[in-house]
Amino acid sequence: MKNLNSFLKSIPHLTVDLGERSYPIIINEGFERFVELYQHLALQKRVFVVTNETVAPLYLDSLLEQLSQLNCDYNVCILPDGEAYKSFEQYQRITTELIQSHHKRNSSIVALGGGVVGDITGFAAATFQRGAQFIQIPTTLLSQVDSSVGGKTAINHPLGKNLIGAFYQPKFVYINAKTLHSLPKREFNAGMAEVIKYGMIHDSEFFEWIENHISSLHALESQALSHVILRSCDAKAKIVAEDELERNRRAILNLGHTFGHAIEAICEYKDLVHGEAVALGMVMATAFAAEHQLCDKALVERLERLLQAFQLPTRLASLRQYTDKPINAKLMIQAMLRDKKNTSERIKLILPVSLGKVKITEQFESQQITNFLCEFGLSQ
Amino acid sequence: MKNLNSFLKSIPHLTVDLGERSYPIIINEGFERFVELYQHLALQKRVFVVTNETVAPLYLDSLLEQLSQLNCDYNVCILPDGEAYKSFEQYQRITTELIQSHHKRNSSIVALGGGVVGDITGFAAATFQRGAQFIQIPTTLLSQVDSSVGGKTAINHPLGKNLIGAFYQPKFVYINAKTLHSLPKREFNAGMAEVIKYGMIHDSEFFEWIENHISSLHALESQALSHVILRSCDAKAKIVAEDELERNRRAILNLGHTFGHAIEAICEYKDLVHGEAVALGMVMATAFAAEHQLCDKALVERLERLLQAFQLPTRLASLRQYTDKPINAKLMIQAMLRDKKNTSERIKLILPVSLGKVKITEQFESQQITNFLCEFGLSQ
Repeated sequence: MKNLNSFLKSIPHLTVDLGERSYPIIINEGFERFVELYQHLALQKRVFVVTNETVAPLYLDSLLEQLSQLNCDYNVCILPDGEAYKSFEQYQRITTELIQSHHKRNSSIVALGGGVVGDITGFAAATFQRGAQFIQIPTTLLSQVDSSVGGKTAINHPLGKNLIGAFYQPKFVYINAKTLHSLPKREFNAGMAEVIKYGMIHDSEFFEWIENHISSLHALESQALSHVILRSCDAKAKIVAEDELERNRRAILNLGHTFGHAIEAICEYKDLVHGEAVALGMVMATAFAAEHQLCDKALVERLERLLQAFQLPTRLASLRQYTDKPINAKLMIQAMLRDKKNTSERIKLILPVSLGKVKITEQFESQQITNFLCEFGLSQ
Repeated sequence: MKNLNSFLKSIPHLTVDLGERSYPIIINEGFERFVELYQHLALQKRVFVVTNETVAPLYLDSLLEQLSQLNCDYNVCILPDGEAYKSFEQYQRITTELIQSHHKRNSSIVALGGGVVGDITGFAAATFQRGAQFIQIPTTLLSQVDSSVGGKTAINHPLGKNLIGAFYQPKFVYINAKTLHSLPKREFNAGMAEVIKYGMIHDSEFFEWIENHISSLHALESQALSHVILRSCDAKAKIVAEDELERNRRAILNLGHTFGHAIEAICEYKDLVHGEAVALGMVMATAFAAEHQLCDKALVERLERLLQAFQLPTRLASLRQYTDKPINAKLMIQAMLRDKKNTSERIKLILPVSLGKVKITEQFESQQITNFLCEFGLSQ
């Protein structure tokens, strides 16, 4: 551990503090320091890499080069790209390939990719032989600022997103910020929705910082990116450390997700990028809170302005460029009732009360939410 | 918790000590005290019961009567009976029914049945919405003395038994010893294989106690059954408490299972009952140990005598009444190489050194095991 600590001092990082399950998140430009970190953690030299067909041509070779330097024995599983493949079928496929290539529970299972790859790989690691070693290399802004912290792993069920999963912490997270240069602009902007969320729920100063650094972020300036990633992970790590298993407080991370997941479910997890659904979902939650006098109407406008600066949808009309699915109030409520956060038959909402502060509530009837959705422009 | 403690004082029980995840195992005759225990633990009144088509006609009504007394809202899922149904398909079915009946992560998911029902239900509870409340009501001797303790949940993969799973502790285990009166004799005897195992690995006095109570056990005398269940659970709880996640010591519980699982895999999890495979597996492990001068040859004979008192197979020939699958050395080694316990390409064996004591070793080559198997009567 002494070596690990001195290694960590030499590189931008953050430690997610979860007692026995604590782990470091490293931020670097390039994959060069992966070998060092892997060695410092004394992991076995058997590695199973899961990635997808979009990420593989860009970064797989660089990673495999690192593994070769380690004299690692490795296998690779390349999934199709997309949320639709965070499925039982692909999960079964990963486990089959793990078994066929004789991996054991002390093998390292590495997720190289965005949130979908991270979630399904994490779930496979959590459940393969009752738990193998899990390593994350998130390559999208969204997964770097969101899935890196919190240990949530999951696959989708045909009836709802992330309904099957486990809490399972990685051994470490390695972020190569350079991967953001190959990320499509739309994906980058979607990641910014989650970044802005941390400002909304926890850190009003950070929200202001983002408002003041829009152009540096669009230009992918190194320092700005590194700041955004570290500060987002730090916000999430603090919230998760208080409540690892999402018994209560941690649910604030779901600002915009109750509405957002419902929109995604109606779109059958196609058409929209997750962050876009969250952006619109945050506006819905904030507008709902304002309508019920929980927060100021000005907060809705300020949030919309910042989201729009990253070309994110903030009204139903702005979704129409992406999808023609019937996003109506009835389907929204049905999907929201299936939300994992609900502890009863009531819908649990995360609602802003001021910039940097939200509350969790089940006080509202489905009918009140329906009424709001209709005012927001959805059909019945 | 005060109420819980005074309740526990009024009933034979054992507490499995795992810090925050500690839970009680209650032994009773009948289901009458289920309600009390459930209430003392302050669980939500939403219950999803998983059982199978053999157990349901015998005990489901008695359990549902208890749930009605609690004013519980419940759903029931009845699986086909058999190891073949500890599958991805039935697991998916359970999760689908959980979602369709709007269960949440604070619902109680109850396993009413033997090891298969317990394992698959536990895995569903572990992974439904990243972890729901799990309650076990084991109805076979094997599941009462084995699956009640340890938090191992799993489903089978077409390529091997229990390769997919999670460590997940129940909220409580309720054992109705009367269920053993409806258990087929063959299943009871198979459970005795695991009971005898606790004597072999941990408790030589208990082994002797069993040798002296063969007829009371065959007669299903209440006191003898209660002693066997509590002492077995106690042995297992002590071993598990030392090593919850099976990093090392806990592996001793697998005496007979390395060979046994291989036999079961070759039989495609049909023909044989798990305990029968374990019985023969224990004899194989002990005979292998004796051949390599790790233990006395007399131990092999003593073990065989006790197993035979419960009509358990101790030689390949005695399996032939159940199966005609080609149990040969080559297939055995292939299956053993896939064992989860292996941490390298070598086979990890649990081998007796004296009565009540075993060692864990990877010192033997596959070839040595092959040679032994051929001497034991298997073809190449």
